Amino acid sequence: MPSFIENGTRFHLDDPKLAPNSAAYLWNRRMMIQMNCRGYAVSQYMDPEPRKYAHPPIMPGQIFMLPEQGYYPNHPGRFFYLRDNDSGALFSAPYEPVRADLDRFAFEPGLSDIRWLIEKDGVRVELCLVLPVDDVAELWTVKITNTTAKRKSLSFVPFFPVGFMSWMNLGGHFDPALNAVVCTSVTPYQKIEQYFKNQHLKDITFLTADRRPDHFEVAQQAFEGEGGLHAPSALADGGHLRGGEAYYEIPACVMQWDLTIAGGASEDFRFVFGPAKDKAEIADLRAKYIDGDVEQVRRDAHAYVTEGGRSCLEIQSPDDTFNHFINHWLPRQVFYHGDTNRLTTDPQTRNYLQDALGVLFIRPQTTREVILHAVSQQHVSGKMPDGILLRPDAELKYINQVPHTDHGVWLAITVKAYLDETGDHSILDEQVAWTDDPTPATIREHVTRALRFLAAAVDERGLPYIEQGDWCDPMNMVGYKGKGVSGWLAEASSYAMSLWSKVCAAEGDEETASWLKSEAAALVDSINRHLWDGDWYGRGITDDGVVFGISTDKEGRIFLNAQSWALLCGAADDDRKARMLTAIDEQLVTPFGVEIHAPSFTAMREDIGRLTQKWPGAAENGAVYNHAAAFYAASLYHVGEGDRGFQVLRAMLTDPERADIATRGQLPLYIPNYYRGAYRQFPRTAGRSSNLFNTGTVAWVYRAVIEQLCGVRGEGDGAVIAPQVPSSWQTLNFTRRLRGATFNVVFSREDGLAKQIVEIDGQCVESGRLAAIEAGRIYEVRVRSPR
Amino acid sequence: MPSFIENGTRFHLDDPKLAPNSAAYLWNRRMMIQMNCRGYAVSQYMDPEPRKYAHPPIMPGQIFMLPEQGYYPNHPGRFFYLRDNDSGALFSAPYEPVRADLDRFAFEPGLSDIRWLIEKDGVRVELCLVLPVDDVAELWTVKITNTTAKRKSLSFVPFFPVGFMSWMNLGGHFDPALNAVVCTSVTPYQKIEQYFKNQHLKDITFLTADRRPDHFEVAQQAFEGEGGLHAPSALADGGHLRGGEAYYEIPACVMQWDLTIAGGASEDFRFVFGPAKDKAEIADLRAKYIDGDVEQVRRDAHAYVTEGGRSCLEIQSPDDTFNHFINHWLPRQVFYHGDTNRLTTDPQTRNYLQDALGVLFIRPQTTREVILHAVSQQHVSGKMPDGILLRPDAELKYINQVPHTDHGVWLAITVKAYLDETGDHSILDEQVAWTDDPTPATIREHVTRALRFLAAAVDERGLPYIEQGDWCDPMNMVGYKGKGVSGWLAEASSYAMSLWSKVCAAEGDEETASWLKSEAAALVDSINRHLWDGDWYGRGITDDGVVFGISTDKEGRIFLNAQSWALLCGAADDDRKARMLTAIDEQLVTPFGVEIHAPSFTAMREDIGRLTQKWPGAAENGAVYNHAAAFYAASLYHVGEGDRGFQVLRAMLTDPERADIATRGQLPLYIPNYYRGAYRQFPRTAGRSSNLFNTGTVAWVYRAVIEQLCGVRGEGDGAVIAPQVPSSWQTLNFTRRLRGATFNVVFSREDGLAKQIVEIDGQCVESGRLAAIEAGRIYEVRVRSPR
Repeated sequence: MPSFIENGTRFHLDDPKLAPNSAAYLWNRRMMIQMNCRGYAVSQYMDPEPRKYAHPPIMPGQIFMLPEQGYYPNHPGRFFYLRDNDSGALFSAPYEPVRADLDRFAFEPGLSDIRWLIEKDGVRVELCLVLPVDDVAELWTVKITNTTAKRKSLSFVPFFPVGFMSWMNLGGHFDPALNAVVCTSVTPYQKIEQYFKNQHLKDITFLTADRRPDHFEVAQQAFEGEGGLHAPSALADGGHLRGGEAYYEIPACVMQWDLTIAGGASEDFRFVFGPAKDKAEIADLRAKYIDGDVEQVRRDAHAYVTEGGRSCLEIQSPDDTFNHFINHWLPRQVFYHGDTNRLTTDPQTRNYLQDALGVLFIRPQTTREVILHAVSQQHVSGKMPDGILLRPDAELKYINQVPHTDHGVWLAITVKAYLDETGDHSILDEQVAWTDDPTPATIREHVTRALRFLAAAVDERGLPYIEQGDWCDPMNMVGYKGKGVSGWLAEASSYAMSLWSKVCAAEGDEETASWLKSEAAALVDSINRHLWDGDWYGRGITDDGVVFGISTDKEGRIFLNAQSWALLCGAADDDRKARMLTAIDEQLVTPFGVEIHAPSFTAMREDIGRLTQKWPGAAENGAVYNHAAAFYAASLYHVGEGDRGFQVLRAMLTDPERADIATRGQLPLYIPNYYRGAYRQFPRTAGRSSNLFNTGTVAWVYRAVIEQLCGVRGEGDGAVIAPQVPSSWQTLNFTRRLRGATFNVVFSREDGLAKQIVEIDGQCVESGRLAAIEAGRIYEVRVRSPR
Repeated sequence: MPSFIENGTRFHLDDPKLAPNSAAYLWNRRMMIQMNCRGYAVSQYMDPEPRKYAHPPIMPGQIFMLPEQGYYPNHPGRFFYLRDNDSGALFSAPYEPVRADLDRFAFEPGLSDIRWLIEKDGVRVELCLVLPVDDVAELWTVKITNTTAKRKSLSFVPFFPVGFMSWMNLGGHFDPALNAVVCTSVTPYQKIEQYFKNQHLKDITFLTADRRPDHFEVAQQAFEGEGGLHAPSALADGGHLRGGEAYYEIPACVMQWDLTIAGGASEDFRFVFGPAKDKAEIADLRAKYIDGDVEQVRRDAHAYVTEGGRSCLEIQSPDDTFNHFINHWLPRQVFYHGDTNRLTTDPQTRNYLQDALGVLFIRPQTTREVILHAVSQQHVSGKMPDGILLRPDAELKYINQVPHTDHGVWLAITVKAYLDETGDHSILDEQVAWTDDPTPATIREHVTRALRFLAAAVDERGLPYIEQGDWCDPMNMVGYKGKGVSGWLAEASSYAMSLWSKVCAAEGDEETASWLKSEAAALVDSINRHLWDGDWYGRGITDDGVVFGISTDKEGRIFLNAQSWALLCGAADDDRKARMLTAIDEQLVTPFGVEIHAPSFTAMREDIGRLTQKWPGAAENGAVYNHAAAFYAASLYHVGEGDRGFQVLRAMLTDPERADIATRGQLPLYIPNYYRGAYRQFPRTAGRSSNLFNTGTVAWVYRAVIEQLCGVRGEGDGAVIAPQVPSSWQTLNFTRRLRGATFNVVFSREDGLAKQIVEIDGQCVESGRLAAIEAGRIYEVRVRSPR
């Protein structure tokens, strides 16, 4: 049975065929690897742009990760063949490429390692992958055990394909001094400037072992032969690797050991795989990780993830899967985002700021730095750029070259959240210059000016222009002629202005506060005047004046974001709210979450744009796009719809049982970018995970759980304690750390209560408000709620 | 036995394992396909830039063809599974993906079709691919024969993978009205401008059949399953395709027929595979090629290649392989180059002009058009651009953005050759404007100014600057600082000036003629002064004043081009010539041809550049780079070394016997870009073909055979007849068409002759010169030569 193990810090999958694309990921300061349960891998490191060190057999296009699509036999991976030299039988661990029927299979990803246990015909193979904290390297340990009573003669053959490294130069050889297969290449280029830029690149990929192999091979074709990877010719008929090299031939790291293992005995191996600039670097990595203490590497990696990425919340609810995810896997995913910026040098501004919104609950100092860095690239006009450059040599690429209008919204939201979580008002007085004006301004001014810029970019109806997209990148043709407007952006701007108005008021700047309040109200007014469609809000108005996302649309009839943010900004009264919730339930809710819109577009709509050309049900075209669903959850909590909010959040998690894992095709170790939608149009594929763990979702889910479900958040100098616990939960215990204090909260339901009662250290606190938080203090909180 | 069949117009390969990468190609006005003997395929069409309609399972990078590297199981291809429904045994034609041991295998590419015959267990499968002349479509016919006396129950399953079409949108379904699997996609883009540019794209890939399939599948993973392509799960246990569709899943065109075939009986099928813009286009293609006359398509395709690309030469020598290649396959390859411009919209200027140099002997009108078009993009300064734009919307890409200095040379050479072949001096008076000056100038002036530009771009030694490369693209760091010079370019410029001087003199422009002559002589003088190294010529002088390609160099000691063009331009006296030939024999000649330089570089040399970073022995880093070898052959004939010249040419052809096919890994149907060199450094891989049939080689080989080996060429208003026949040939008969006349030449060796004697229509012509050619006349020529 698939299940969480080790108190939820590890998962156990017992079948490689149940969800072939299911995977786990590890990262460190320099790299990331996504390992599929069957042995396929996608790994990259920053150098400074993302690069790979194991490739497919052709030159791949520059593309973001797309782990939803299938793997194929020659996909990069890490594989270990085992041959019984007496019977000739061959299998491979973890499963690919031989795909033998195994006696036992366990894929067990943990917080800081990934391990497998495979058994077949009396041979047990235990694999474990860990990443050192500070190097681009994979450290693999392998234990091979003869589980029978009789001696076994085995051949053990690790196979790490390296693939098409470069059309200019690729090859490989075995280096006895390094005890390594060393695959060399020259990164392709044509323009001379690039030669000088490429000097630092790690153009070598190597596999080194702690034991001298009896045989080796470097040319993949020589290994594979006519037999194919599932039955390599080099291993047929008791064969041994021929000790070949690769001369402008696709290289692979293949080693072979002839082992005689007594009954019950084991053999241990250790490998390091990764890129290197030169052989000296391989020698260094060998010294550290082949000669060094592997247990120390494991401890450091564990500390990096669990201590470095320590959450401010631990919960104990009746829902174990939820507990495990919230206590271990969600903060891990949030930390990954804030720690790596998704392995790019020019994160989209909205991603950069929202990832910082998540990491705020783990490492608020990171959020502070992100805010200061982001506004240093703001224009003096108040406009935020489309992407934030993380290095002097970075540049805006791909989608960051297309103008979007929403970036200022995230600045206000993130700074407000930062103030609430930390109480650190000193940030508002920090002075930062503009990208196009060296005169420094306070952060207070930066945020206000971002909102002024938003307020100014509106049409005669008072609705904000969408240009070539807002939060929704591919909604690029609503306003590209300069007239179309975004209903969602009107709501989001209004919400951001309301938030910031409160900050200004608390800071004593009544003038700005009141201007923001009136702007926010004006936006609400415009929304209600122009976008209310009778049962829900339209998403926007096109260049030609057509309101879309309304009941007369056959496709894209209702958009989730336009409803969620109407709740957040307070546009909807109770009647409208009820109608909207009904419409959402009827049209957008699926067993796998809430769709971003429905019906999915099945043909291009030229006044909406590129999103309508995406596959119906995939990504922004009607998927259960979790980022949008997370906004919805937050908005539901915001209006006191906690039960609905929890349902939305809970649907983001795969249930650890066979049927849900098979349908979604992923494990409950991360929230994916999306689950396939178009549930009412293409039911066969609905629910299938994108398996992409990069997503703005997690910041919002984490925050919703901390500040809304558990309901402990900072406010002014104090705190608010107002849990919105699912009505099906009778109890909930949690610990929340906030501004140096600890809140131990015990929630329970009781009969006969009229309303929820908060007691702090035995004192009933009617409002749930604590005027001032004392750092270092432990607050014992009891929340009693009607049953 | 592998062999030519059908009088050399077809080849027969009997073993799919002998040379796994061996392939043949077809093309038409819009597309090209390279089919590997085992069923893998690379095809592309112009739309207007090159595009593919069958893809690997990931998004591939933009890269030129690289058929030297191996294929892999999920590489695009055209495959036909056959299952015996009684025994369950499965094989696939032509060979992949099942790789079953076949009873009979024949891969038989012809001039305008590619066919296979496969037999296994009493089932014969005959496949034939032909391309219609005017559509982007593959027309496949399949005949399945039961060669036994007993009735057979078979399942026939064509499998055409379509692969990763787009991350935006990919899918597929079966369309009963079209009787086709229709795979749909949206070409990925992000910027809005691209949306409008993409409107015309053929984003559909389809397979349609002349019979309704009993079953079908569109999702590749559903077909493949856990079994893999070599044993697809959908075909296991007597299974049938489930009639599925692909919803944002990798699509494939898979159909299944259940056949009961009586002993000795056959079933026929016809398929069309290709891209389409919409379903109407599929219907049109069905009407033409499913309902139409397949024999007429075959005749048209044959006429397109053989009549459209008709050679001016047929030879009958004692060397059958050579005859077949020269009579059928070489003019075909030359025609392909001139017909398609290698499927690019911005051919490099040197390729564009040299491809026109070849097609001159097939369609001189094309050459005339190329010359006029090329000079229309020349600068008024005389400088030729790095690439020629073939369409108004084309742009200079990749290597054409790097400045090279040799382009003017090819203009003079091509125009001179055009004049010799056609006698059409009217071209010289054609008026064409410059790219940066609307004032038209004659072609005469265009060529002269190109040479003046070359003459002016020299240093204080009188040697021409190389900037970031000459003919040799990746020799990009010899002169990037502005000082380095090219010895080869000095020679080539001198040669071009000498040629053009003759034209000017014949036209009565003595002033230009004599200036050119003195410039040519000055270049020769500079070469001899600065680049003669004692036994051969150096290749150039770096920015830092270092002569390279000389005896003190450990790598890149001798460069072939520097010697060949020294012979062509007349720099070398007899003593030097002898020393050079000895050095070439000792250092560059290999059993697979002559290397471009030796030893190959094994490490970056920063004062030479990118070529030293290529894999040693591959491409410009020391391969038998056939383009350079062809220059060498021409230069050998030029100085009367006909026997050596022939050896160089002959080494370019794979011998049609097992050992040479296995070593080179290709069939003698085209001259490849290169054979792997570094023969003395990496003997294991030496001789291996690049399998790339795009190469400037073929124009020069064709011309050498016509004008030098056979020795019949135009000169002024007349002709020169001066064959240089290999001394091992006792006879040679050939027919050469020139300027509307036909020369039937009978060559033979006789004892007792002092020198070669030419008789035209029975008259001995001492000089071998015919003063004037009469169009329409048939000249009977007899050449008697000493034995």
